[in-house]
Amino acid sequence: MGVLYQQVTLIGLGLIGSSLGHAMRQHGLAETIVGYDCESNSRDTAVDIGVCDCVFDTPEQSVKGADLVFLCTPVSTMDTLAATIVPHMRTSATLSDVGSVKQHVINSMTPHLRPDIHFIPCHPIAGTERSGVRAGFADLFTGRWCIITPVHNQTPPPHTYTAAQERLASFWQGMGSKVVSMSAQHHDMVLAITSHVPHLIAYSVVGATDRMHQDSKSEIIQYSAGGFRDFTRIAASDPVMWRDVFLTNTQQILSVLDNVSTEIATLRQAIENNQSDFIVDYLSHTRNVRRSIIEAGQDVATPNFGRHQS
Amino acid sequence: MGVLYQQVTLIGLGLIGSSLGHAMRQHGLAETIVGYDCESNSRDTAVDIGVCDCVFDTPEQSVKGADLVFLCTPVSTMDTLAATIVPHMRTSATLSDVGSVKQHVINSMTPHLRPDIHFIPCHPIAGTERSGVRAGFADLFTGRWCIITPVHNQTPPPHTYTAAQERLASFWQGMGSKVVSMSAQHHDMVLAITSHVPHLIAYSVVGATDRMHQDSKSEIIQYSAGGFRDFTRIAASDPVMWRDVFLTNTQQILSVLDNVSTEIATLRQAIENNQSDFIVDYLSHTRNVRRSIIEAGQDVATPNFGRHQS
Repeated sequence: MGVLYQQVTLIGLGLIGSSLGHAMRQHGLAETIVGYDCESNSRDTAVDIGVCDCVFDTPEQSVKGADLVFLCTPVSTMDTLAATIVPHMRTSATLSDVGSVKQHVINSMTPHLRPDIHFIPCHPIAGTERSGVRAGFADLFTGRWCIITPVHNQTPPPHTYTAAQERLASFWQGMGSKVVSMSAQHHDMVLAITSHVPHLIAYSVVGATDRMHQDSKSEIIQYSAGGFRDFTRIAASDPVMWRDVFLTNTQQILSVLDNVSTEIATLRQAIENNQSDFIVDYLSHTRNVRRSIIEAGQDVATPNFGRHQS
Repeated sequence: MGVLYQQVTLIGLGLIGSSLGHAMRQHGLAETIVGYDCESNSRDTAVDIGVCDCVFDTPEQSVKGADLVFLCTPVSTMDTLAATIVPHMRTSATLSDVGSVKQHVINSMTPHLRPDIHFIPCHPIAGTERSGVRAGFADLFTGRWCIITPVHNQTPPPHTYTAAQERLASFWQGMGSKVVSMSAQHHDMVLAITSHVPHLIAYSVVGATDRMHQDSKSEIIQYSAGGFRDFTRIAASDPVMWRDVFLTNTQQILSVLDNVSTEIATLRQAIENNQSDFIVDYLSHTRNVRRSIIEAGQDVATPNFGRHQS
């Protein structure tokens, strides 16, 4: 692939920011990687472990000279960050983000944009339950989708915007991602189903154990291999990031959640009414969904996610 | 450990039955392993792949001469199976089962017992989303708990029952399990929380996608790495086995499900009311549950369950 950008600036050096650093470096996609994080420890660590070539103490300084700037911070910070950095960006640069919600990011950043900057929102569908600068790794994006939600009413001329978008798509492909483009609204609906509501449900299932007596809690921990432990993985994700997702894609999430609640009520009713055939039929259909996900290369085929334990 | 039983008979050669065969053999716990399954293919395969030394065409024949008989079939079949096999069991033999629900199994088997048979219900908290005789493997039970729910109003003299129970506990320990004893009712409540309701929720979340248009379905498959794919693993479990769980531990399951639904409603309300601090606090607590499970050795510490993908 070769170098696609001279200087890439990563703002926010958590799981996604640090993984971008490692991945860009592994695939030789950027000449120089510059970083900023509000935590000085994270900035120092990023340089120590090779995520960034250098870091700056302020976001303004970090974006100077960058031809690509990535915001990798919780969604609620992007409004203020855009206001801070955009005046310092070089002309024709690309501004992108990796937020899990797209319409809200677009709405909050649009007022701060400049006509000579290409704003191209992205969302890599990749992650783990870990947070922080040490959680990143180079192949986080390999085989995963990156969704681009272009902003069509941009002020830059359409042909330069298209060129900037193609370059950014090549960048993600260079890290092993598959790239697709869709509207922000469609993204927010699909992700409410595939990510936001599953997280909300997992947090609720795990959260319900908090109301229990200490004795019951320790039994739930011991016997969690019966299924519960699966829910605890995504319920261990970053609290601030997920608060922001829940508070910025609220309408779509609540609408999908209501569908899931209806579904739970349907299965509950069938159990209460002893509808044996309905239940077997129901539980057989869901098996096919797993098969399709494995065929699409979006999960491992080995049992128990290939967990290896001593 | 050495040989603990001369002949162990496995009735039902699915994931658990075949794993018992492999594990007993690996640890040298039984002199002879005899099998029965209602599917003749499964019987033949069990001998071919070394799960059993021999198989019989009827359950009656398979239990003759066994000093330990394990029922490894869906919970709804155990009533009829007990009626069929108990008259053919040798005196002083132990009859056990691995059903995920215990009070119902005890209720349905008790009428068929004999005063000279030791009935000791068990439940190994171990499994994968795979089914069938080829799904089993020797270390499925290693590091996992096995819950024994002794039947205290048995007709055999208490001291022989205690001795039989200790022998069975040693057998599970010989396969690497940790053994604990509790009442059937307590088991059914704990497992409703740690296993039955998580499965019901996962089936519902995945089942909700079935109501969608084909286009949306394929997008959900593509972008499932955002969290949804985790739910599809346990929603790919055996439909008949899980129908039986839902229809035989109904009261406990519905009661726990109502608690989870209340919890979902609480988090929903907090999102709707924009209660930022409450949400961060909520999402921070659930993180500790994950940590406790890893410390208890009940899940791997590696991110994404240690999934390895190409």
